[in-house]
Amino acid sequence: MDLAHMIVMARGEKQVDLVIKNCQLVNVLSGDVSQAEVAVSGGTVVGIDKGYSGAIIVDLGGRYLAPGLIDAHVHIESSMLTVPQFAAAVVARGTTLVVTDCHEIANVLGVAGIRFMVDSAKESPLDILVMLPSCVPATPLETSGAVLSAGDLEPLLDEPWAIGMGELMNFPGTIAGAPDVLAKLELFKGMPVDGHAPGLSGLDLAAYIAAGANSDHECTSAAEAAEKLAKGMYVFMREGTGARNLLDLLEAMNPSNSRRCCLCVDDRHPGDLLSRGHIDSMLRMVVETGIPPVTALQMATINTAERFGLAEYGAIAPGFVADMVAFDDLESFEAMLVFKAGQIVAKQGRVIRDLGVSPEVGSSFNVAGFSAERLVMPASDGARARVIGIVQDQIVTEALSAEVPVRDGAAVSDPASDTLKMAVVERHAGTGNVGLAFVRGFGLKSGALASSIAHDSHNIVVVGCTDADMAAAVARVTAMGGGQVVVAGGKVAAENPLPIGGLMSSLPAEAVASQVDGLNKAAAELGCSLEDPFMTMSFLALPVIPELKLTDRGLVDVGRFEIIGAFDD
Amino acid sequence: MDLAHMIVMARGEKQVDLVIKNCQLVNVLSGDVSQAEVAVSGGTVVGIDKGYSGAIIVDLGGRYLAPGLIDAHVHIESSMLTVPQFAAAVVARGTTLVVTDCHEIANVLGVAGIRFMVDSAKESPLDILVMLPSCVPATPLETSGAVLSAGDLEPLLDEPWAIGMGELMNFPGTIAGAPDVLAKLELFKGMPVDGHAPGLSGLDLAAYIAAGANSDHECTSAAEAAEKLAKGMYVFMREGTGARNLLDLLEAMNPSNSRRCCLCVDDRHPGDLLSRGHIDSMLRMVVETGIPPVTALQMATINTAERFGLAEYGAIAPGFVADMVAFDDLESFEAMLVFKAGQIVAKQGRVIRDLGVSPEVGSSFNVAGFSAERLVMPASDGARARVIGIVQDQIVTEALSAEVPVRDGAAVSDPASDTLKMAVVERHAGTGNVGLAFVRGFGLKSGALASSIAHDSHNIVVVGCTDADMAAAVARVTAMGGGQVVVAGGKVAAENPLPIGGLMSSLPAEAVASQVDGLNKAAAELGCSLEDPFMTMSFLALPVIPELKLTDRGLVDVGRFEIIGAFDD
Repeated sequence: MDLAHMIVMARGEKQVDLVIKNCQLVNVLSGDVSQAEVAVSGGTVVGIDKGYSGAIIVDLGGRYLAPGLIDAHVHIESSMLTVPQFAAAVVARGTTLVVTDCHEIANVLGVAGIRFMVDSAKESPLDILVMLPSCVPATPLETSGAVLSAGDLEPLLDEPWAIGMGELMNFPGTIAGAPDVLAKLELFKGMPVDGHAPGLSGLDLAAYIAAGANSDHECTSAAEAAEKLAKGMYVFMREGTGARNLLDLLEAMNPSNSRRCCLCVDDRHPGDLLSRGHIDSMLRMVVETGIPPVTALQMATINTAERFGLAEYGAIAPGFVADMVAFDDLESFEAMLVFKAGQIVAKQGRVIRDLGVSPEVGSSFNVAGFSAERLVMPASDGARARVIGIVQDQIVTEALSAEVPVRDGAAVSDPASDTLKMAVVERHAGTGNVGLAFVRGFGLKSGALASSIAHDSHNIVVVGCTDADMAAAVARVTAMGGGQVVVAGGKVAAENPLPIGGLMSSLPAEAVASQVDGLNKAAAELGCSLEDPFMTMSFLALPVIPELKLTDRGLVDVGRFEIIGAFDD
Repeated sequence: MDLAHMIVMARGEKQVDLVIKNCQLVNVLSGDVSQAEVAVSGGTVVGIDKGYSGAIIVDLGGRYLAPGLIDAHVHIESSMLTVPQFAAAVVARGTTLVVTDCHEIANVLGVAGIRFMVDSAKESPLDILVMLPSCVPATPLETSGAVLSAGDLEPLLDEPWAIGMGELMNFPGTIAGAPDVLAKLELFKGMPVDGHAPGLSGLDLAAYIAAGANSDHECTSAAEAAEKLAKGMYVFMREGTGARNLLDLLEAMNPSNSRRCCLCVDDRHPGDLLSRGHIDSMLRMVVETGIPPVTALQMATINTAERFGLAEYGAIAPGFVADMVAFDDLESFEAMLVFKAGQIVAKQGRVIRDLGVSPEVGSSFNVAGFSAERLVMPASDGARARVIGIVQDQIVTEALSAEVPVRDGAAVSDPASDTLKMAVVERHAGTGNVGLAFVRGFGLKSGALASSIAHDSHNIVVVGCTDADMAAAVARVTAMGGGQVVVAGGKVAAENPLPIGGLMSSLPAEAVASQVDGLNKAAAELGCSLEDPFMTMSFLALPVIPELKLTDRGLVDVGRFEIIGAFDD
């Protein structure tokens, strides 16, 4: 807004667009909650006193009015929703801004994928700001759809939505001084750089921070959070669908350091967004521990805005973007009304305005080199295979070994001992690469599961009892242009099409959540003992988490960080 | 420092420059005070754990180690000391960085004056960062040595030491939308803009903030501070030589808003710096109220660094500049050792390294047009003069009137009724301008006082019992190239030469303080009833403070903001 006009409106010399009356303003700047009237002009808060006349008057009937909630770190792709449908789910809960690291789609589509996410938000009631993906691909031991160097990222720094560098997962490379990592850190010097350093501490942590990583969202204990705060990191306390750390980390927070604590979900599945909610669910958890509501709201608003240098976000005061949410109380944090830049965008848990649509995105599948024969694992009788051992509720695995049955000169799945074949089928470049190994922990008695969500390269991952069902599952994922499928006896038992980059659906959260439920039920009917087998499967191709993982290039010994054979030497 | 080298040093792979052992680290990031070892390399903190080997080891014997103190807003010129001598006084007290608005010297010498201040700090153990003066001159009702427009300031924005816009005293112009003010605000959009808005509240305050002013150091009550915090300003709590607001303002501070509270002295005289100290004196006051020492130190370190976006200042953690101060305890805050960028610069209250020297600066005096005859005030018998009424301990004045004696057709001072003549002699451009009026409150029985410190244009201000002594005093100030003088019977009774811009001495604080004492004693011997007549006099030419002030253009009715006659109509 023109400065002269802003001054005129703030002085109340002309009618403003909107006056919100009869509310208890949660002022995250002063730490007070008190009666106020909020005046908005041109999408900006111009005043918080009585004395304005407004074209529109909203009477909140004494309810609380807080700044719109901010998620400090989220991979929208993990919701399997497009930005508009993700917005529908989270804006209804009071979220008006998310800081996203879109490294999932970037691993598939590169810079075009990043731009796709930003363009998808253009008409949406949710603002998205991007931390540019720093680790595409995550490792050189896999084939991704794109490689992003410092030189690829540099032109994006001119974009207003690019505010820093996304999670620097390559902390070993950082503290070893890897030149490609340092080149990126030099590029982002003085900007926010999100860290990702689970368990890093002591002098190595100091080096990682001194190199530029100034936040972390991977803490799992209060002691870890305390050390990271003490050394200068912002700590993003996470409560995802899988990783749930908030309550543990709150124990490290005190009134002198809470300003450096923010809230994030990292990854939340659609069913979870619908049932638990988004940042609002974390506010409920925080205040239940006895922490004052103003402190909780600061974690979800001004703290995050400050961390990212967003001077116009995170508070309700003159000059701030008029992103606001009205709550009935500061315990349940149920969003009664949500304002985006002064417009009412959601009422009583439902978005009431157009969400916009995502632009078209081309196919991200090229499996020209694949055929069912590529699933065959030649072996001689009595072969002992290395086996990826799933650990319940964790993404680390164990390195096991087992004798596997051999038929017609090839090792095959053995459902009786829960030793199943697993494959990772390269889907970006038509290389025909298929990584093969054995896995234990799914409990499948028949059929196969396949998915094009497989962190971070998102090749097709498939686990099954027969090569035929595995091949049928891969074929179905390919035919859908991406998605998740349960196949039994050569037929599709359940599926969740994800045609957008093989990661996202254009359906609403309710529909996607229902499809995911269908998958889980179908898998259970085939004997699967995991609660969420597709989430488990999505991490089995991520070769930065110990001990054994499988990529399209083969079995990875994560500790040695090299490809090894599928069978014992 | 090179990133690769920084990482190597932080990991402890090589010997660092300095290890500080056996200290209680005051961690303003985590809010904790705990045992630590601090490793420094290349002037930067690289670690805070045990495990480093250092070329130099300093054992603090269990003492506290805190970040170097930061003054959020100071006019160094008010100390009458050059930057090196100011540094000697404050670095010894633990201050390692000041944010200065050098609008005093800028009113005299313009951009050259600003550069002079910065250049003076080059060899000094004190870092100075500059908020560029926004109001030079303060008003169009006076003649200053320079006029700084937005266009004059713009080239300075490329300088690393220029971090924002200095105190925007012209708040009436701001909220009236004055184009020259808005041009400056547009120039500094998105940067720190220090406000100066005593008593401004409600919708006018909202307008001032919406226009861009995002701090204030002029609060005098807790209610005023609370409103400014709530509307989004950082509040700089001030404890100057004259204006002492800290204790009142602390009542507005709470754990949820303390992060937006900083400490500043604004203006402190040399004697005050020596006897009370600098930011350390404010820490003592804060903790005496029962506020935790960590909170007090945050106000003097990280809060200020955050307000100004100084990511490398204000804490002791990897990547921060190694500015640190060791205290025996967290009550007296007596600085035992002070480190600037990892070098010991002060020990037990004394700076132990070279202070550097200020560069030469040319004459700032051009009084070619002045002669004693310009002090004559033609009047007829029974004339009633308007009289500036001094109010004890305040810089506001009252508008009085009195009959004044007339001799040889001219109005003269009347010591019997304490109605004295006052003149403001233009000293920059040789215009010969002399503003003349009467003042009450000095109590001088004979002699005259003159000074070249007269906010903000710093013309020569003189008060006296006879034209002859007044002229002699002006002549002496001119001969010194600036300064302060007490004249009695045509002879100099005491003086304080300030040859640098007419504002500063190159002598140490002790010498200047002693000269100021000499002036006050000499004035008292002439009957002066004011404790600090030169400070009072320095504000009598500032036409932004009600009600009557005198500039070189004449008597100003501040309420009407116009020049009026010296006599009643």
